[in-house]
Amino acid sequence: MPDMTPRHHHFPHFARLTLCRLALLLLPLGASAQRPDLMPLPERMTWNGEQHRLDNRFAIAIAGDPDPRLYAEASRFMQRLAERTGIFFKTWNVTPADRPRQPTLQIRAGSKGVVQHGMDESYTLDVRNGQVSLQAATDIGAIRGLETILQLIASDDKGHYLRGCRIDDRPRFPWRGLLVSQPYHFMPMDVVKRTLDAMALVKMNVLHFYISDDQGYTIESKAYPRLHNMASGGPYFTHDQVREIVAYAAQRGIRVVPEVDLPGHCTAILTAYPQLASVRRNYVLQDHWGVFDPTMDPTREEVYRFLDTLLAEVASLFPDEYFHIGGDENTGRDWKRNDSIQRFMQARGLRSTVALQNHFNRRVQAILARSGKKTIGWDEVLMQEIDDSTAKARFEAGDFASLILTDVPKDMVIQSWRGMEALLSSAKNGYRSLLSKGYYIDLMQSTAYHYLNDPIPFRNDVIIPDSEANFNRFESEILRKVKAGEKLLGPAEEALILGGEATMWTEHVTPETFDARVWPRTAAIAERLWSPADIRDVADMYRRLDIASIHLEAVGSTHARNPGMMLRRLAATSDITALEELLGYLEPLKGYLRNAADNFTKYAPYTQLIDAAVADPRPLRQFTGAVDSLIAAPTPARATAMRKTLRRWQVLQAEVDRLAAGNPSLAPAKAHATALAGIATYLLAHPGWMQPGKGLSPAERKALGDRLAEARKPRGYCTLGVAESLRRLAD
Amino acid sequence: MPDMTPRHHHFPHFARLTLCRLALLLLPLGASAQRPDLMPLPERMTWNGEQHRLDNRFAIAIAGDPDPRLYAEASRFMQRLAERTGIFFKTWNVTPADRPRQPTLQIRAGSKGVVQHGMDESYTLDVRNGQVSLQAATDIGAIRGLETILQLIASDDKGHYLRGCRIDDRPRFPWRGLLVSQPYHFMPMDVVKRTLDAMALVKMNVLHFYISDDQGYTIESKAYPRLHNMASGGPYFTHDQVREIVAYAAQRGIRVVPEVDLPGHCTAILTAYPQLASVRRNYVLQDHWGVFDPTMDPTREEVYRFLDTLLAEVASLFPDEYFHIGGDENTGRDWKRNDSIQRFMQARGLRSTVALQNHFNRRVQAILARSGKKTIGWDEVLMQEIDDSTAKARFEAGDFASLILTDVPKDMVIQSWRGMEALLSSAKNGYRSLLSKGYYIDLMQSTAYHYLNDPIPFRNDVIIPDSEANFNRFESEILRKVKAGEKLLGPAEEALILGGEATMWTEHVTPETFDARVWPRTAAIAERLWSPADIRDVADMYRRLDIASIHLEAVGSTHARNPGMMLRRLAATSDITALEELLGYLEPLKGYLRNAADNFTKYAPYTQLIDAAVADPRPLRQFTGAVDSLIAAPTPARATAMRKTLRRWQVLQAEVDRLAAGNPSLAPAKAHATALAGIATYLLAHPGWMQPGKGLSPAERKALGDRLAEARKPRGYCTLGVAESLRRLAD
Repeated sequence: MPDMTPRHHHFPHFARLTLCRLALLLLPLGASAQRPDLMPLPERMTWNGEQHRLDNRFAIAIAGDPDPRLYAEASRFMQRLAERTGIFFKTWNVTPADRPRQPTLQIRAGSKGVVQHGMDESYTLDVRNGQVSLQAATDIGAIRGLETILQLIASDDKGHYLRGCRIDDRPRFPWRGLLVSQPYHFMPMDVVKRTLDAMALVKMNVLHFYISDDQGYTIESKAYPRLHNMASGGPYFTHDQVREIVAYAAQRGIRVVPEVDLPGHCTAILTAYPQLASVRRNYVLQDHWGVFDPTMDPTREEVYRFLDTLLAEVASLFPDEYFHIGGDENTGRDWKRNDSIQRFMQARGLRSTVALQNHFNRRVQAILARSGKKTIGWDEVLMQEIDDSTAKARFEAGDFASLILTDVPKDMVIQSWRGMEALLSSAKNGYRSLLSKGYYIDLMQSTAYHYLNDPIPFRNDVIIPDSEANFNRFESEILRKVKAGEKLLGPAEEALILGGEATMWTEHVTPETFDARVWPRTAAIAERLWSPADIRDVADMYRRLDIASIHLEAVGSTHARNPGMMLRRLAATSDITALEELLGYLEPLKGYLRNAADNFTKYAPYTQLIDAAVADPRPLRQFTGAVDSLIAAPTPARATAMRKTLRRWQVLQAEVDRLAAGNPSLAPAKAHATALAGIATYLLAHPGWMQPGKGLSPAERKALGDRLAEARKPRGYCTLGVAESLRRLAD
Repeated sequence: MPDMTPRHHHFPHFARLTLCRLALLLLPLGASAQRPDLMPLPERMTWNGEQHRLDNRFAIAIAGDPDPRLYAEASRFMQRLAERTGIFFKTWNVTPADRPRQPTLQIRAGSKGVVQHGMDESYTLDVRNGQVSLQAATDIGAIRGLETILQLIASDDKGHYLRGCRIDDRPRFPWRGLLVSQPYHFMPMDVVKRTLDAMALVKMNVLHFYISDDQGYTIESKAYPRLHNMASGGPYFTHDQVREIVAYAAQRGIRVVPEVDLPGHCTAILTAYPQLASVRRNYVLQDHWGVFDPTMDPTREEVYRFLDTLLAEVASLFPDEYFHIGGDENTGRDWKRNDSIQRFMQARGLRSTVALQNHFNRRVQAILARSGKKTIGWDEVLMQEIDDSTAKARFEAGDFASLILTDVPKDMVIQSWRGMEALLSSAKNGYRSLLSKGYYIDLMQSTAYHYLNDPIPFRNDVIIPDSEANFNRFESEILRKVKAGEKLLGPAEEALILGGEATMWTEHVTPETFDARVWPRTAAIAERLWSPADIRDVADMYRRLDIASIHLEAVGSTHARNPGMMLRRLAATSDITALEELLGYLEPLKGYLRNAADNFTKYAPYTQLIDAAVADPRPLRQFTGAVDSLIAAPTPARATAMRKTLRRWQVLQAEVDRLAAGNPSLAPAKAHATALAGIATYLLAHPGWMQPGKGLSPAERKALGDRLAEARKPRGYCTLGVAESLRRLAD
């Protein structure tokens, strides 16, 4: 990357510096050195200016009454401390038998934590007077604190040390999840485990384990073995492996909530057991992506007997109190095709398929209640199916009651994915809810967008409009209210919002690309859900995200290392510097545009240019910042730096061309490099843009605009991200 | 890396171009484009100049009577083909039901292969007239052929194609193994699986699974659960997981041979069951590396009852006919310390601990025979313990009989690790044997060294002396005989040499570094054991190794991607270009020098500079080549290129210094960069070396020599690899 200043620019359009909070964090001495590198930032923190030196005498003493998991986590902490600092310890094992005479780290965990919703994750950390003291109500809080300590490590020429500080920390929301879907591309054990390690690092606490869809049913069933034998679509997790995942998560204070998507998204189950379907047809596993008609028949007792056995079996594998039944994207078409179902609806006065689905949901909820489970569903399980203009009118009138179905039990938890209005309606009507709208990390949006998306946005002044996603009903209304300073929920209603979940739907994601699609962006969502609402400095978030990225790598995430491998395979050479540089300016197609662009299936190759490209690449952010600085104040130094970048683009084209010669896989890269060089050549030949007060002539603006429009065209499902900021420069 | 020509230089000192064989491979049309990229190279191959274009109509038909594993491997082949070429296939699944009307790839596998020693791995491949035909006696041969096809893929601007050819291939040796040790650093399931995938790619067929040592017993035992509960040292494989590994290997035509090291290297077993020990003491798991005294008591029936049960249990998990009982590095000290054992020896006329161990081995062998197993042992199980001068005298006199123990059963297989003479003696006395001496990839030697190390070296003219390893008894004698053209083994004796095994002892290796310590170097050993003996062109091996490296990455090996991650952690920044460049000139300490250099244990951090460094780095090879070219013909262009490199070293120092500021973990990197810049500055200031016929003055040679000696000092357990070639330049 060419050097472009400023390195960590601000986003003047939407970022807000929370100066009052930052002031808390800064002491007079060396403010820049004292900026906390933590992610997520804690609730309260003060530096004390001390340095706690680290050496091989470091020893941990654990007091209180913790669950044994804390000893294992303390041992893992020692290992990571050694790996980070290069210190030789005698052992990493921390056991109840250890009674170090001079412990450097004193941990006190008052009681055994139970990994469940509402668990106490708070902790207090004091690094002062040569002592590190970590106090928590439960061992789970202590585990969160251990992650914080590892992020406090600093170094100078004398060695490594912890920065002296006092931290009082607890999560803002109790539910901070990540959904991982298994049916599209199976994510094997090692991916799941390293994801859990990464989640723990940023203090997330729920793995939403999505196991069944049209493309596969991905865990073993002893009761219905045809499910894994015929309908897994390949690999699946055995009961032992599911238990291994649950135990691995619990060890890190992470819950695992399963989802069996019902009654739609059921092709896999119906492939194994077609007698449960609403329509007789030859069911085969789906290998395309999308929304399909196959649906369970909610009118037959046989279906509920099947679910009674199956859900009890699944429920027994996942000790968590919550169970997700899906409920999304039922087209209702198969129900309309079946006369018997139509008669059932008429007989019971069910006037829509939504009403019928509600009938089904209540039966399923009762089944799960027998296993002691509380039910979660996507927002379709709550919302009335009414046309948008009616819905908007009611929304404007504050009529939240008629927006929802009438007889959904109050203990159903609503996961909002289609729009913020479901979250609002849930809370207004007394339902607990989770936000996922705006946390769809599979849609390739910017970290800043996800970061500023808040489960309770009404207390904040700005959010980024979700211009890229394809579902944003009501958004403009909500934005308008928020901008007008309107507070839409009262305290009791806000308390019903449990938190949120990032969702990694893996249609276009393989074990090779999974980590780079999840991390580091999800760390920003983790902070949104853990840290106080007014922590919203986007520039500082990006600065800390770069640091978190390296920590995430150390616990196994492959997000930074796999793209290089993919480029080497694509280019058939290890000399990929030019491609890496080009990728810094490319963005994968956002939203669902990739789906629309080609006939992608489970058997499509996810090894191409877009798959090595990442959302929100840092070089592109830096370039955008450089352009914005230049627009704001076109100093000669900035103009010179920009010219240097443009000249570099011209050279880059030659380098990419050389790699792409005789390599059809690199044709999109060649096209992007050509477009980039074309822009550079035009701007260098028409330097009005860098002359203050001059600018480009209208004809030049038009000519450049054509080039930028050309550059913005998707090639290899990627677009050149430089066009937007350069258009601002041209204007 | 600065550009240094030639890119793939020859090693004139020891390489031999097998011109006759290469001639076979080259047709008149475009010789350079036709050089085969395969690794290992096949037994016989001819190009036919055709191009078989690849598109989405590619379809596989399987005929014959193969094991079902061939369908799974053909499906995996389709997936890899899609991933390599970016072609969208309708499906990757190949099933017996498939009857494509126009199959592009016709596979015929005559019979179901059994994954066992001596399995038929031969195949014939014909890419001609728009058809790909793969014929094999068994599905295992067909699986080997599928790997070859994936290495034949080429591309031009029109797309991807297979190069037309005819290949008749079979392995030179039936036993081509890789030892993976579990007790030092546990290598979890994902490491084992991706290792098996990589082994299959280069046609290796034995995973030597080393499960027990002083530091841990690493698989579950249902009969003796204290073994995994108390003596695993942490994680271990359950029975189900062992079966998963064996099945995964068998799927790829790879055998798994377990080793339980007896009667020494037994601290772990004795920690769980101290009553089996030769000496009463408080046994605790060893966490240091080395050779230790704890040994089973070979005089007590209780020990054999224990082994009878344990080995039967282990044997039942590993279906392979062979079982390794270790037998190495028994110090004999604990036997000498025990009066009862001494009396036992006297009573039976056992005059040495070696004789007593032979008594023990024969008992264990009989136990394993009851499970249907053949026994393997390290060379100690065969060789007499006599002093070196006596041994050498007998060796010179051709008295091989007295070099070995008298009553070792003939069906014991000998694995030679201490020196080539064990292999010779085994064969001369009718024992079958495996070579590992010279394939110790944990010792950080060059790929060329391993490549030219041949299980039957006598037919070849040159080998590289093993100057780095610490055990090379007899080597000079053997070298002398080989150089004199002496052929030491007859055909029947040669037939007793089954092959060899690369050994990855993981004392200094973690799951993070494992792949980079194994690959790509082991691919060269795989070729040595598969390809004809006269395939020995080192330059071409290195050219193909670069290609194989990218293929190995694609099946999961992390060897090329993990070092970058490690450097980012070490430097606490993603801006590591300078460190990567410096690492290109560094070599990790070779042989056992690292062991000697510090107090390494299981709890040492293996995350430092040396752990990111790799043996035999390509930039260093390129630099050495550039120096050799300059010495051979000091043209102005070469001198200019060298000056450019030297100036780059001066800049590199500044860049490394910037990264190392305030970072004690980078102190060794800073010292190396300083030494490198010091050499550069001296050579640039004293340019006599680049003036033909002039050279450095004696005083300058001395001054440079001092700098080179300084540069050669280990720092952070690495040495600057440029010193040796620069000394040649100075002289």
